[in-house]
Parts: sequence; C-alpha cells; structure tokens
Amino acid sequence: MIPKQMRALALTDDGPRLWTRYPVPVPGPGEALVRVRLSGVCSTDLQLLAGYKGGYRGVLGHEFVGEVAAAAGAAEWLGRRVVGEINIGCGYCDLCRRGLGKHCRQRQTLGIIGRDGAFADYLTLPLANLHPVPSNVPDEQAVFTEPLAAALEILEQVHITPDSRVVQIGDGRLGLLVAQVLATTQCDLTVIGRNPEKLAILHDQGVVNTVLVGRGGGAQDAFDALSARAADVVVDVTGSPAGFVHARRLVRPQGTLVLKSTFAEALPDFDVSSLVVDEITLVGSRCGPFTPALRMLQRRAVAVEPLIHARFSLDDAVEALDYAGRKGVLKVLIAP
Amino acid sequence: MIPKQMRALALTDDGPRLWTRYPVPVPGPGEALVRVRLSGVCSTDLQLLAGYKGGYRGVLGHEFVGEVAAAAGAAEWLGRRVVGEINIGCGYCDLCRRGLGKHCRQRQTLGIIGRDGAFADYLTLPLANLHPVPSNVPDEQAVFTEPLAAALEILEQVHITPDSRVVQIGDGRLGLLVAQVLATTQCDLTVIGRNPEKLAILHDQGVVNTVLVGRGGGAQDAFDALSARAADVVVDVTGSPAGFVHARRLVRPQGTLVLKSTFAEALPDFDVSSLVVDEITLVGSRCGPFTPALRMLQRRAVAVEPLIHARFSLDDAVEALDYAGRKGVLKVLIAP
Repeated sequence: MIPKQMRALALTDDGPRLWTRYPVPVPGPGEALVRVRLSGVCSTDLQLLAGYKGGYRGVLGHEFVGEVAAAAGAAEWLGRRVVGEINIGCGYCDLCRRGLGKHCRQRQTLGIIGRDGAFADYLTLPLANLHPVPSNVPDEQAVFTEPLAAALEILEQVHITPDSRVVQIGDGRLGLLVAQVLATTQCDLTVIGRNPEKLAILHDQGVVNTVLVGRGGGAQDAFDALSARAADVVVDVTGSPAGFVHARRLVRPQGTLVLKSTFAEALPDFDVSSLVVDEITLVGSRCGPFTPALRMLQRRAVAVEPLIHARFSLDDAVEALDYAGRKGVLKVLIAP
Repeated sequence: MIPKQMRALALTDDGPRLWTRYPVPVPGPGEALVRVRLSGVCSTDLQLLAGYKGGYRGVLGHEFVGEVAAAAGAAEWLGRRVVGEINIGCGYCDLCRRGLGKHCRQRQTLGIIGRDGAFADYLTLPLANLHPVPSNVPDEQAVFTEPLAAALEILEQVHITPDSRVVQIGDGRLGLLVAQVLATTQCDLTVIGRNPEKLAILHDQGVVNTVLVGRGGGAQDAFDALSARAADVVVDVTGSPAGFVHARRLVRPQGTLVLKSTFAEALPDFDVSSLVVDEITLVGSRCGPFTPALRMLQRRAVAVEPLIHARFSLDDAVEALDYAGRKGVLKVLIAP
C-alpha cells in the first residue's frame, strides 16, 4: 500500500523544485513512516530558501501533522494521528547522554539538517519524537504544534511572573503565537508590530496593549516612549539585527532579553560591555516542548486559525513558498 | 580637625596627576565623610586611565576601607571602620523605585562616574552605602570587599550547583577572587589562565583543576580539548574579545556564559543566531552584594592576601598605577 515514489518539494542547487517521483523514505530502526496530512510554512523555510545556513539540500518543511503509515515492531502506532519533534540526536554523545539530544552536534533536524522534511507525501521520524494528537484538535490546529512549542520554550527558560513588564517586538507568524503564550502569564505585555491586521488578531485574543510602528521615523518615537519605562523582559521575534538593537534599548538593567529568532546577518560591533554594565541576561531560544503545546491546543487556550492565510496543494508547493514570502502573509498550509 | 585640603590622585585631561592641595569633599545630606585607610587598584582604574569611557575626570579609586570622619546627625557612625558600595542612585527615578538604584541612569559611581574616588585622603558616600567592617577583618582584607562582592554577584545571578561543570577563563585580579567564589559551590571547576604563579595561588586554595595556556598555538589545543567536554557555565573574566570568543566555544548548548568584565572594544560580527540555535544564556555581571563579601572575609573563606603584590604610599600613587599596569601584577594597595 505504501508507494515507492511520492511528491516532494526539495531544495536543490537550482532552488526549490517539486519532484513527483521522489523516493519514499525508508524508516530506520525505531522509526516510523508518517503520511503527511498537513504541513505549514515557517520563516525558517524561507530563510533556507534564501540561502540561510547555505548547505541544506533535501525536502523542506518541519511543521506537520500526519498519520503513522508504518512502524516496524510498534503496531500500536499504526494509523495514529501524530505531530513530531524535529530534532534527532545521535543518542550516545556527551550531549545526548546529558538529556540535550535536541542540541546533539550530530543531530538531524527535519527539513533543516540532514533529514528530508514535511513538504512531501511521507516523512520518517523516530517513534520517540512522535506525539499523538488529541481527537478534538483538528489538523488545522495540530499543524501549529511545533511553532507553539517553540513559543512555550520561552516560559521554560525565563520565569515570567504576573507582575513582569514584558515587551515583545515582532508580529510575524511566530510572534503572534509568542504573544499569546506570554499573555498566559498574566504579565503586563506590550507587543510592538508593523502590521495593523496582525495586531488586530492579538486584540481579538485579549492582548490589547499593542504599539503599531511605521517604517519611518515614527518607530523611533515609539521606541523612545517605551524605553522610558524599561521592561523586565523583552522578547525579540523580529529576526533582524535592527530588532535586536531596539530590544536592547527597551530592557531594564538586570532584565532579560530573549532572542526568539535566528537571523542570517551577524551583528556588527556588538557592545558586550554594555551588557555587563547593565547586567543584562540574553537568552537564545529555539525549539520547545510539544506536550504543553498540545495541551494548549486541546484546551483552546490559543487561537491559531486566524493565523492561516492560505492553503495550497502539495502540487503547488513552489507557489505556496512564494506566497508565504510576501509581505504581511502569515501561515501558509500545504495539504497533500 | 578635618583639613580643607588633601592629597588626591585625579585623572585630568593630561592624564593622572597627584594633587597635594585638592579640596576635601563636603558630604551632602545623609552622607558621611570617610577618611581613607587603604585603597586598591582595580583593572577598571587602568581602563579609565587608558581612556575607557572617555570622559571621567576626577579622583580615581573605588576599592577602599576607611573610617567615618564626619556624619551630620548620625554620630553613631563616627570613627567606625567601613567599606562602601560604590553606586549612588538618584533615589526617585523609575529604576531607583524598583530597587535598581545601582543601575540608576543618573547614578554616580565612586571614582568612575561623577564622584571623586578613594585614591585620596578623604571621600564622601551616603551612609546608606556604608558597611561596618568586622573587627577581625584587617584593612588588607577589607579592601577586597568590593571586588569580592562583584565576584559573588555571579552566584546571585546564576544558580551554580555542586554538579555543575564550570569553566572560568582568566586569572587576573578579579579572576582569582571569582575562582574562589565559584569553588564554594563545590562545582566541577576548571580555571584557564596564562600565568603559572597566579594559578598556583588557586592551587593553594584547593582550586586544583587549572589549565595553563601560552600565548601561542598551545592555547588553541587546550581550548579544543576543553570544548569537547562542554561546560554548563563558562565565566569570562578576561576582559578581552578573544576571551569571549573562547568562552562561547566552551559552553554547552542551553548553558550559561557569564561576562564578568567590561572591555573597551566592541565585538566585531557577533553571531547572535548561534546563541539562539544553541539556546545559550548570556549574563552580564557587575557590582555585587557587600554583606556576604564581608561574611566571607570574616569567616576566612577566601584568601585575599596572596593577591597583594605591592603597597604604595598615596604620595606615590602615580607610580602605583603604573606598577599595577605591568603584566602579571595583581593587587596594588595605596595607603595614605
């Protein structure tokens, strides 16, 4: 029943290309073959397309919900609807032994490093990476598990309390999830963004303290006003060096600055001494825990469907990526 | 009994200069006049001399032990032997109200920003900044209270446990105090330094896991060996961009990198994304708590006297600074 070939959107030396006869991946020991039901385009996919991390060649995509199509020796998984953690450690190195498998130096990361991803009919992942999806969470929500987990990682790393003054910069795909997660702490949250429609989504979810900044001088004024009331925690989800510079200005002495997105360029002339003088804590934040992400979705504690801007067939995956890269577009889904 | 003029080593547009008829400072409301008994030269003094923070003009010195010579309306302080916290907040701004007075944007810092310092016969500080010195702590130890407090600040900021793997880079004045403070946690501590005599001081204090690196290629090998066994916490006390780069390599994913010294140059091309991918926490660390520093000195839980390399008279303060700047020299004391 499982075909030998499938459709797949792979990054090649010539850019993204849709293959119709790409080999169906073969699961290794302890791994499952997963039929993809729905996948989502992330900014990381667009960065990979743009040459970020130079190097990755293979099927893109790491946000997905699927169904177990094969799992040797683990029949109980067959047919289950699942989401999957995307990092695969070697299992035996120093870091893996210390419980840091997601940071294993030899790791594969689905659709990002060394393992074909989710913009395809099938993918493989270790069973240990899979999480069954509760029946009341539809595919259109389950597909947000991975980015929602990444947002929750902030709360794993930083103790944000109800009395914390928190500023988030950035209202993109990940930013709208991060803001909703931050709001669960009941903190005094302000979200700075460039897009009135995106900020309106947050307003609808009760995150009413938003600041719209334009691309001109108005942004400077807004940041000046905010910096006068320095934040305990600033979360930068802009993915740009400029965002980092603003975030640094907004955090109070002894405060915490969370970097929630990678960006391709290095920061020129980074003033490390100012971090020392102001005793700032800088926290890099990447992938997060799936279990609470699924719990949030199950409890309807986060709104994800307003973030869906388009749905494409896998046959049109190249167009889907192109569309996702347009200004202001939020989540683009790809359905086989 | 209090003279109108005094000796003072002040930084002028023409460099450091010893004045013999510098005006004795007049304490403001709530402040004490302190007769300096002994002061210490810190690397920050040398950085100020070298033009760090451009701008400071006035009496240098912020590490001292003294005796209260005048304190209007607070006779109980008269004659008491004291050490003093060096930051003076405005008391009414947003930061001061939030208990962050040491980071007040309008702050003065003794001998560093806007307030004449300790390389003089007298200085002034608010009574609120003063701490009585226990009688069993001699001046030669009490003068280390300020840098020891700065070392203790690391333990205020980062939870280092007995099972933590900690690497410290740097064996200078502050580094030798930091290493002894880190060792109190019973963690697995390795100190990397360039100077066999300094590392020998640590050996004598039971910090036996030290790595001596030369200035040539040997350093690279040593760092390569250490990075294979990545540390939970790395403390950079080198005060140099090169130290930071090494420290970054030695910290494990999800680990913490503590920046314990300012340096004049900005870091070129700082790779912020790698902090995100490896989920590193970067912690800037400056001044710390005096009470536990005095407790450590009182309990003889830290050896400071082996760090004393020379003692000068205030009359020879210019020479004292020159000597302190020589390679390998640790603490230089100045006695009026």
